[in-house]
Amino acid sequence: MDRIITVIAEEIELKDPVLIEGLPGVGNVGKLAAEHMLEQLGGHKIADIYSKHFPPQVIIDDDGVAELVSNQLHVVTGKGDRDIVFLTGEYQGLTPEGQYDLSDHILEIANEWGVTRIFTLGGYGVGKMVETPRVLGAATSIELVEEMKNHGVEFSKGEPGSGIVGASGLLLGIGKLKCMEAVCLMGETSGYFVDPKGAEALVKVLSDFLGLEIDNSDLEEKAEQIDLITSKLKEMEGSQEPKREDLGYIG
Amino acid sequence: MDRIITVIAEEIELKDPVLIEGLPGVGNVGKLAAEHMLEQLGGHKIADIYSKHFPPQVIIDDDGVAELVSNQLHVVTGKGDRDIVFLTGEYQGLTPEGQYDLSDHILEIANEWGVTRIFTLGGYGVGKMVETPRVLGAATSIELVEEMKNHGVEFSKGEPGSGIVGASGLLLGIGKLKCMEAVCLMGETSGYFVDPKGAEALVKVLSDFLGLEIDNSDLEEKAEQIDLITSKLKEMEGSQEPKREDLGYIG
Amino acid sequence: MDRIITVIAEEIELKDPVLIEGLPGVGNVGKLAAEHMLEQLGGHKIADIYSKHFPPQVIIDDDGVAELVSNQLHVVTGKGDRDIVFLTGEYQGLTPEGQYDLSDHILEIANEWGVTRIFTLGGYGVGKMVETPRVLGAATSIELVEEMKNHGVEFSKGEPGSGIVGASGLLLGIGKLKCMEAVCLMGETSGYFVDPKGAEALVKVLSDFLGLEIDNSDLEEKAEQIDLITSKLKEMEGSQEPKREDLGYIG
Amino acid sequence: MDRIITVIAEEIELKDPVLIEGLPGVGNVGKLAAEHMLEQLGGHKIADIYSKHFPPQVIIDDDGVAELVSNQLHVVTGKGDRDIVFLTGEYQGLTPEGQYDLSDHILEIANEWGVTRIFTLGGYGVGKMVETPRVLGAATSIELVEEMKNHGVEFSKGEPGSGIVGASGLLLGIGKLKCMEAVCLMGETSGYFVDPKGAEALVKVLSDFLGLEIDNSDLEEKAEQIDLITSKLKEMEGSQEPKREDLGYIG
Repeated sequence: MDRIITVIAEEIELKDPVLIEGLPGVGNVGKLAAEHMLEQLGGHKIADIYSKHFPPQVIIDDDGVAELVSNQLHVVTGKGDRDIVFLTGEYQGLTPEGQYDLSDHILEIANEWGVTRIFTLGGYGVGKMVETPRVLGAATSIELVEEMKNHGVEFSKGEPGSGIVGASGLLLGIGKLKCMEAVCLMGETSGYFVDPKGAEALVKVLSDFLGLEIDNSDLEEKAEQIDLITSKLKEMEGSQEPKREDLGYIG
Repeated sequence: MDRIITVIAEEIELKDPVLIEGLPGVGNVGKLAAEHMLEQLGGHKIADIYSKHFPPQVIIDDDGVAELVSNQLHVVTGKGDRDIVFLTGEYQGLTPEGQYDLSDHILEIANEWGVTRIFTLGGYGVGKMVETPRVLGAATSIELVEEMKNHGVEFSKGEPGSGIVGASGLLLGIGKLKCMEAVCLMGETSGYFVDPKGAEALVKVLSDFLGLEIDNSDLEEKAEQIDLITSKLKEMEGSQEPKREDLGYIG
Repeated sequence: MDRIITVIAEEIELKDPVLIEGLPGVGNVGKLAAEHMLEQLGGHKIADIYSKHFPPQVIIDDDGVAELVSNQLHVVTGKGDRDIVFLTGEYQGLTPEGQYDLSDHILEIANEWGVTRIFTLGGYGVGKMVETPRVLGAATSIELVEEMKNHGVEFSKGEPGSGIVGASGLLLGIGKLKCMEAVCLMGETSGYFVDPKGAEALVKVLSDFLGLEIDNSDLEEKAEQIDLITSKLKEMEGSQEPKREDLGYIG
Repeated sequence: MDRIITVIAEEIELKDPVLIEGLPGVGNVGKLAAEHMLEQLGGHKIADIYSKHFPPQVIIDDDGVAELVSNQLHVVTGKGDRDIVFLTGEYQGLTPEGQYDLSDHILEIANEWGVTRIFTLGGYGVGKMVETPRVLGAATSIELVEEMKNHGVEFSKGEPGSGIVGASGLLLGIGKLKCMEAVCLMGETSGYFVDPKGAEALVKVLSDFLGLEIDNSDLEEKAEQIDLITSKLKEMEGSQEPKREDLGYIG
């Protein structure tokens, strides 16, 4: 069995496609943003990626049907000037080598499908509640940095100081070695819970870039619910900052 | 040395065979059920599977003869409409990659031997004593789900929520990629000790499916012994639930 | 770089050779016995085995010269009816897969050199002081078990219950798959410290088997020193059993 | 994707080159020394080494441009009788096997570039403050040991007792197998913080060997700052030895 097996459902022809990665990470900000866009834009699944680098596990759907854990590629076509490929899933590779293999594999597919721009989405955990989250960026070239500044992305010296770990980082790093253009967008988040506010900030940048209107009312509603809970908790405790354990159950 | 070495004792011709996996897991319910059926039906060993994915260890039999740790394939023939292959052993693969490799390897053998249906057996740990254990299921298709409902298997939305980990899950997940039909049967169990009651529930489902009569008095006896101990412990402690440590020695 | 590199110093022709493995393990009993025999019989080094499965480390000799960590093969020739190959070293493979690879590699060399009998040496930790250590055994066949009984080896049902882990086990287990005859000899030991008494017991069995006289006064002296210390500790503490921490420094 | 990818910026012709390794380690003494020499001698980067054995991570420069984590090779030419290749970086391989692979790979490049002498730099942690750090050594041959004594390197029996772990050790150990001459220089250090005093001692030995004058005022300044802090801490606490936690923030 190969280390990575990609099962492609149908041959596709894409128009100047963009790849958007939204795998699990800090505050699941990137995952939430990608899944929200996918739902709003009405994409359909084109490929499943299975791998020995994922946990040895099946998940079971509501009917009782089991499916090997995987990452998925969905495509959105005909919604703007450029088609979009979304990379989503419940897991990233379990080991450093697995992470490298999977990112390299995704880039090979992206290359084949003619992807000319990659966006990786993540959260930037700041350890405290954020009223208006910034979108921080990193990119494979100084030209891309300048371009993304026009879409409201901040590039802040020393942030994030520890670099970017996982698929969101590797797709840039390995992509650069393959001469591919890639940008990482990081929505500011406390990092304490799944954060729709940080995700909304990412979606706004991407909508602007892609020239698409995306309804964010779902994310806003979820964000309001969380604001409500956190302000109630503040009252109850008379404290300034809700504690991690209070919010841990919000998923 | 290859990662997996299968030593097959003899060529066999099997009639519409079913593969039943019973490796160690939660409450060892699956292992117990498979070994009980194998004993009652009188199977004989046809293959040993050795692997670098198992612990670097030999076991020693009562005569002092050492044997590399392995999984075993036994066959039961001429006992019903379909022959049966049992997969048993003391270990599963030590790493995620090892688990994938081993399950893939088993499926290759199953394919070669003409296996048309796979049952993987496991326990579903509920963390409390169970009077009458249910048998929960998961399968590779909705048709199989419907079929197994007729044999008393329950398919319950959200159970098990975390999916199925290890060989019992992978044989379904990878099997599905190979277009093989597979069902996982999970006997409800406290998960506190080796649980013959959960195993008996599995054996009943399989007996019904295979149209075989299997004497379960051994399992019932063991279950009664455990019931006796647990009720005595309840009396002694005046508590509702026996503690894990009290039952830990029961093997 | 290959996973295992063996540098052989010279071509050799061996007479009906026996391989004796004495790598680190419980109480370092096997290592001590093999190194003692090697010293008494005056062997010379014939090969170094380097491997990525060992720690990424060099050791430094008294002159300041560095050497990659390795296992060594020494040979003793012309001392009896059969020549002897000793496998010694400071490390075993770091991972299960490394252990399998290394044992398989050693067996390939042994096969090439015409080795017809393998002895692996280890300790059998019993967790208390042992006055007269037994030598327990395990072997690749019932015939070998019977043969070794004639040399004072005990084969005791259920001992060791957990099987044999590491090179001492794998050389038997993988050896058996290659149709090689192998015996594991385990000197009883408390397991609390490097144990020359357990090692002496092993050397006596091997001397008897090989028809060689080996001076054990070195081992006896070391054993007496330890006996002295342990009995003093008993007096001082008025206790029956010296505690592990009291003897931990004896190396 | 290969396990190691080296991107070489330009073809170079080197004069009797020396390789100096300064990767992270005890007290970062080796890294500090190599980076200081590189800065003072004005080297330029000639190659990046990327690898699956490094963390799955990108680092971000001050402009917001991301770069896959890597090791770097810089060269210094025309500054003395011999050209110098420096190996530096933020990481060593994450696993033992990764360490072996990377060191072997570096040696292959060094061989191709005609490197005839390797120096690996490290710290020798002694667990207490050191007024005048010694430079301890280890080498691939007794001739090299003698030669290095003439440059002020001490070879002290039993130091370091545990050998040398990581790239600083493996470049010697694997280098020796490839018949390459290599010396490890270890600057004595408390090991409590990044130690410019230990680094300075290394630079002096290398300056002497290479016949180069290197300005160490930077390192001396940093060392003085640390001396100042540690003596203040001593006063404040009235203690002989500053505690690790007091100095931990000095980087």
